[in-house]
Amino acid sequence: MALANENYLKTPEIYCFDEIEKRVNAFKVLHPNAKVIRLGVGDVSRPLPNEVVQAMHKAVDEMSVLDSFRGYSPPQGYDFLIEKILKEYRSIGVFLDKDSIFVNDGAKSDIGNIGHVLGRDNIIAISDPVYPVYENATIMSGRAGVLTDDQKWSNVVYLRCTEDTGFVPELPTEKVDVIYLCNPNNPTGTVMKKPELKKWVDYAIEHQSIIVYDGAYQAYINEPDVPRSIYEIKGAKKVAIEIRSYSKTAGFTGLRCGYSVFPQELLVYTKYGEEVPLIKLWSRRNANYTNGVSYIVQRGAEAVYSRKGKAEVHELVDYYLTNASLLRNELLSIGFEVYGGTNSPYVWFKTAYNQSSWKFFQQLLYENHIVGTPGVVFGSLGEGYMRFTGFSSREDTLLAIERLRRGV
Amino acid sequence: MALANENYLKTPEIYCFDEIEKRVNAFKVLHPNAKVIRLGVGDVSRPLPNEVVQAMHKAVDEMSVLDSFRGYSPPQGYDFLIEKILKEYRSIGVFLDKDSIFVNDGAKSDIGNIGHVLGRDNIIAISDPVYPVYENATIMSGRAGVLTDDQKWSNVVYLRCTEDTGFVPELPTEKVDVIYLCNPNNPTGTVMKKPELKKWVDYAIEHQSIIVYDGAYQAYINEPDVPRSIYEIKGAKKVAIEIRSYSKTAGFTGLRCGYSVFPQELLVYTKYGEEVPLIKLWSRRNANYTNGVSYIVQRGAEAVYSRKGKAEVHELVDYYLTNASLLRNELLSIGFEVYGGTNSPYVWFKTAYNQSSWKFFQQLLYENHIVGTPGVVFGSLGEGYMRFTGFSSREDTLLAIERLRRGV
Repeated sequence: MALANENYLKTPEIYCFDEIEKRVNAFKVLHPNAKVIRLGVGDVSRPLPNEVVQAMHKAVDEMSVLDSFRGYSPPQGYDFLIEKILKEYRSIGVFLDKDSIFVNDGAKSDIGNIGHVLGRDNIIAISDPVYPVYENATIMSGRAGVLTDDQKWSNVVYLRCTEDTGFVPELPTEKVDVIYLCNPNNPTGTVMKKPELKKWVDYAIEHQSIIVYDGAYQAYINEPDVPRSIYEIKGAKKVAIEIRSYSKTAGFTGLRCGYSVFPQELLVYTKYGEEVPLIKLWSRRNANYTNGVSYIVQRGAEAVYSRKGKAEVHELVDYYLTNASLLRNELLSIGFEVYGGTNSPYVWFKTAYNQSSWKFFQQLLYENHIVGTPGVVFGSLGEGYMRFTGFSSREDTLLAIERLRRGV
Repeated sequence: MALANENYLKTPEIYCFDEIEKRVNAFKVLHPNAKVIRLGVGDVSRPLPNEVVQAMHKAVDEMSVLDSFRGYSPPQGYDFLIEKILKEYRSIGVFLDKDSIFVNDGAKSDIGNIGHVLGRDNIIAISDPVYPVYENATIMSGRAGVLTDDQKWSNVVYLRCTEDTGFVPELPTEKVDVIYLCNPNNPTGTVMKKPELKKWVDYAIEHQSIIVYDGAYQAYINEPDVPRSIYEIKGAKKVAIEIRSYSKTAGFTGLRCGYSVFPQELLVYTKYGEEVPLIKLWSRRNANYTNGVSYIVQRGAEAVYSRKGKAEVHELVDYYLTNASLLRNELLSIGFEVYGGTNSPYVWFKTAYNQSSWKFFQQLLYENHIVGTPGVVFGSLGEGYMRFTGFSSREDTLLAIERLRRGV
């Protein structure tokens, strides 16, 4: 009798962003002519950079000719892309081995897959609120324990990420083995500076823990004292993998490309305490579970690093950041309590009149025809908050601002 | 202390195909001018069909313009592709729900990932010899038990797939929960006809097992009484998922696209025997572990179903099949015992003078400058055999034949 992995039954039946879609669709049935402005899901809206487009056309042409056709990609990705990634790291003073880079189909996959190469008994720490995939992957992997009355999982250590912690997660008071960190933070839009991040690296070194560092939004960092990579912190190579993506940077949400860094120095342990380089396990996973990323998309990603490509990406990021900043300023001037939106495309703010997140979501949708993401979908400590994104068009962002000004 | 998943340490450090690469590279260092002909790894060599190329150019252009830019793909894939997949199934009398199709980045990923949604205690059956990923994924998921003296895993049920079984796997005599089946078979190149496949479906229905049906080579089936889909067998929707890929069909090894079918009727069970539709678990995995497949590649896959696209794919498959057939006939005429190569791109044959697979591999490499895949990398019962593929160019295939004729 084929048995189910019953841990999968413990996760919400409907993925939170699909629940939002459902409610928006219900609204649209009632109000077919309303222009709904989407400041909810973090999906980009601007077309691809021209350099990326040209590189992909060239790659498609190569694939059409016998002499330049390419079959399977090297398992960790093409050297032409990996060299560019290493060079960008070098430009911020981070020196990585070529073998430590694993090109993937975007950050989300590896955020979940990392759990497969780790022992079942690890204690996982995630912040609250948090990107839901960290928690769902923890539940699915059987590490969450049981759901308690306050909607928390008994074996998960939740790191408060609230007003009193400055909306960055607080260090655990107990011993944890694996820590998910997202910097700039999704959903709160806040950032940890070097001294703050150093505390995490030191904690991980002391406790032989590892940090899964989600750097999907690093391109949005403006301020010089905010680290763009966790490897800017001394000792981080011993304890952190770093996951990055071209999705929010170069508009690759529909193309699918990113990469993960597994430094050779990063150790995990057998139950007898023997050291194992994590990259050894990850390489085996990589060889058996994937056949790499599309050649065409890897060529597109390479183009991001050309002089013109960089300028185009900078312009894209600036566009979304300006949107976020416009939203932030408007919300502030109306009188909301607002966080994020400066080193991040996300603006995090308290709901009006202390309403619940979902109630405020409904109000925004039905009164202002604006879709936000209710803070509570990111965790119970997100209750009473709302997330807006800067990923819409400028026109829609300005229209949303006008509607907010008319009254929330 | 971050713990390793120690099951990963049980798999071979070097993925078998990488071991072949290593030996070929060693040969090349010694013989830099030798023209090595590769009949080893199953990677395609012909350029992409023109229809696919044109469709991808168009898709790249769409992504460069605001009005036609696309962000995240729908989680299971775009309707334009899923509709074509369903239509092709209908043409062989198989009627599937739209919701049952999950577009993925190639067959390999889901062959491994399926293990994550299944309970740890399932008994897995794999044939011997077999595509190594089935066994490695079983080891990594902690279901293999311990390695015995005869290099078998104690909890895995191995299904003989040898001369006396006609090189198709034999039914298990004990009760197993999950069965990996590949038809046409990789590596033996043989096929199961409908009555044979029916036995497996009946077995699975009787034992409430599930079949992971790897149909990566279905396009190579010539004979009308060989099923192209397991769903041609009555009752199969209750017990089988089917995994297919555009890799060997339309030359997508470097593009990455395939799909898996999870029929609504397919049930797995909780430990208390409650029924759970497997698709329910898989949908949750899909929502949390991936963000779908590149839009450009999905448009490329759609083009495979156009009238011209079909003709081009037919031509490609025919090209590789002709290679396989030429190799098959030559080996037969030299006096080898040969299997496969008619409904499959793979030719499976006994080594000369009962040599071990690796010894014969070395001989072929050093004497004939031909790379094959030693049968033993597919399992101990593959010892004494060799696999050739038809995926090389016609010129190289003919050159290999000439060399074989001159003496093995």
